[in-house]
Amino acid sequence: MRASPTYNDVVAAEKRLDGFATQTPLLTSPLLNERCGGRIFLKAENLQRTGSFKFRGAMNAITALMEEGKDLRSTGVLACSSGNHAQGIAEAARLRGVKATIIMPHDAPAIKVMRTRRSGADVIFYDRACEDRDVITAENTARLKAELIHPYNHPLVIAGQGTSGLEAANVFEEQGLVPDRVLACTGGGGLSAGIGLVIKEHFPKALFHTVEPIGFDDYKRSLIAGEVLENEKTIGSVCDAILTPSPGGISFSILKDYADEGLTISDEEALSAVAFAFHELKTVVEPGGAAALAALLSGKVDVAGQTILAVLSGGNIDQDMLMRALSEA
Amino acid sequence: MRASPTYNDVVAAEKRLDGFATQTPLLTSPLLNERCGGRIFLKAENLQRTGSFKFRGAMNAITALMEEGKDLRSTGVLACSSGNHAQGIAEAARLRGVKATIIMPHDAPAIKVMRTRRSGADVIFYDRACEDRDVITAENTARLKAELIHPYNHPLVIAGQGTSGLEAANVFEEQGLVPDRVLACTGGGGLSAGIGLVIKEHFPKALFHTVEPIGFDDYKRSLIAGEVLENEKTIGSVCDAILTPSPGGISFSILKDYADEGLTISDEEALSAVAFAFHELKTVVEPGGAAALAALLSGKVDVAGQTILAVLSGGNIDQDMLMRALSEA
Repeated sequence: MRASPTYNDVVAAEKRLDGFATQTPLLTSPLLNERCGGRIFLKAENLQRTGSFKFRGAMNAITALMEEGKDLRSTGVLACSSGNHAQGIAEAARLRGVKATIIMPHDAPAIKVMRTRRSGADVIFYDRACEDRDVITAENTARLKAELIHPYNHPLVIAGQGTSGLEAANVFEEQGLVPDRVLACTGGGGLSAGIGLVIKEHFPKALFHTVEPIGFDDYKRSLIAGEVLENEKTIGSVCDAILTPSPGGISFSILKDYADEGLTISDEEALSAVAFAFHELKTVVEPGGAAALAALLSGKVDVAGQTILAVLSGGNIDQDMLMRALSEA
Repeated sequence: MRASPTYNDVVAAEKRLDGFATQTPLLTSPLLNERCGGRIFLKAENLQRTGSFKFRGAMNAITALMEEGKDLRSTGVLACSSGNHAQGIAEAARLRGVKATIIMPHDAPAIKVMRTRRSGADVIFYDRACEDRDVITAENTARLKAELIHPYNHPLVIAGQGTSGLEAANVFEEQGLVPDRVLACTGGGGLSAGIGLVIKEHFPKALFHTVEPIGFDDYKRSLIAGEVLENEKTIGSVCDAILTPSPGGISFSILKDYADEGLTISDEEALSAVAFAFHELKTVVEPGGAAALAALLSGKVDVAGQTILAVLSGGNIDQDMLMRALSEA
């Protein structure tokens, strides 16, 4: 059993990602600052290789496992994902000369299938309506003898996602800035836990907020309860990238005594943030990737006079969803 | 008569813009590098305040004129523009407590009118079909006794635009990089001349290319001829932001013995670059602002193994044009 990741694992991950991951910018906007009344820095992981932070965790996991002697070039890797983790694993595997197999629902957006395949991954489809994802995944993992890389409940994945926070923390320190609050879009919590490890170390006084869709607030409720609680449903939000059944056990163990109040946003608020990002920030964000921005724009937390770090976690939005966001806003 | 701007004027402009202009990031993309075969850095002026580099020149001009004793708070400023210069002047004027009046064609895109007005500017419309823009501008300048700020043929505007190049040059030097080529989207040449002043100083061996729409290649032809030549037409390209009758005299005097071959791109190449920026760079660029990227993507110049600086000059694209770009690509 691999131990829960620490701050030093994030530092080690950053070295592994050097030259492969994009050092994404911290976007700022006078208009956003005026609107929120604080000083907002957006860590633009939508500009990351593959269009989301997921490449970081995937690349760290594959690289570290190979360093540890796992012969991934023989076994290959396997992931189950309809979206950003799929692309992250596929691209990281390509860069490391490893074969990737991705289990995807047959109704996954065509653009995400295309982007996963163009990184060279094999895609195996299953039918959400009549097949069990976990069974399909287990069968294929056994058949291929491949290394299964979980999208969030994996110490190396969490450490990799944390590098986005480490890059941001380094820029803050270079500029003499200290965040009052940090907001992260949260599904299973891999990104949030990774960033949490960094913020705890660099800025121990900063408040840390998970941000989830209303109705999918498993993290918020779990933090209150002090134990892992499940969502009643896992579909039915535009924020597809951050819908998970429950917090990952590892990420929750990192965040449970550390994270502050969990925030939630509606579909309308997420879409409105997508439109704001398009019109005013000139950046392309998917609804789930805009959750933290949505929380700021809709005033879910008071940031008056504060310095804020928020993550734009992904930008893999299809054309129809963007149109919906622009027309509803 | 104010002298032609120098490198030192750009340095002075950068100080004036400090705290007002956004220090825009240099975007990079492994996919873009692979596709072009070079190492590409995109100066993201689409992320500038008001959505284009035009804020830089506007803010520098208004600030410098006030420093010189012009009582702009009494006279106000005036500009004639249907687009990005309008927004730049309106926002710079607002920040300096100066009244701005903008002469716009009555068929200017609604979004650009809205964005100009929300910065507090008065908008005066004219009919392109039956009214003469220059006459309307002269009449209103005289009537209001306002300071007319030309969109590109103005030394302070050129110096301001050059700050985008200065920021990029500083980052290149910090990272030990030297550009082999620099590509700038070019209309009247204010941006190109400003950046040219900087590149000449910091990286004298770099080749400098203007990029224009096919059929609106006044700069390219003027550079070959060694004198200012006019375009036959000034409408009829999707690159509305960079359509001008001819090179500005001041910018041309800066670039005529310095710029290398002018490049040209088609509407299809510009729209394809807009779509590439959307899908792969997750950034929102207007067709004219994507001209330099379009030249790279369509191989207008050989960049194999080279380090390239190219400007994304603006992102004020309306929804219909984006849809057109995404559907045609």
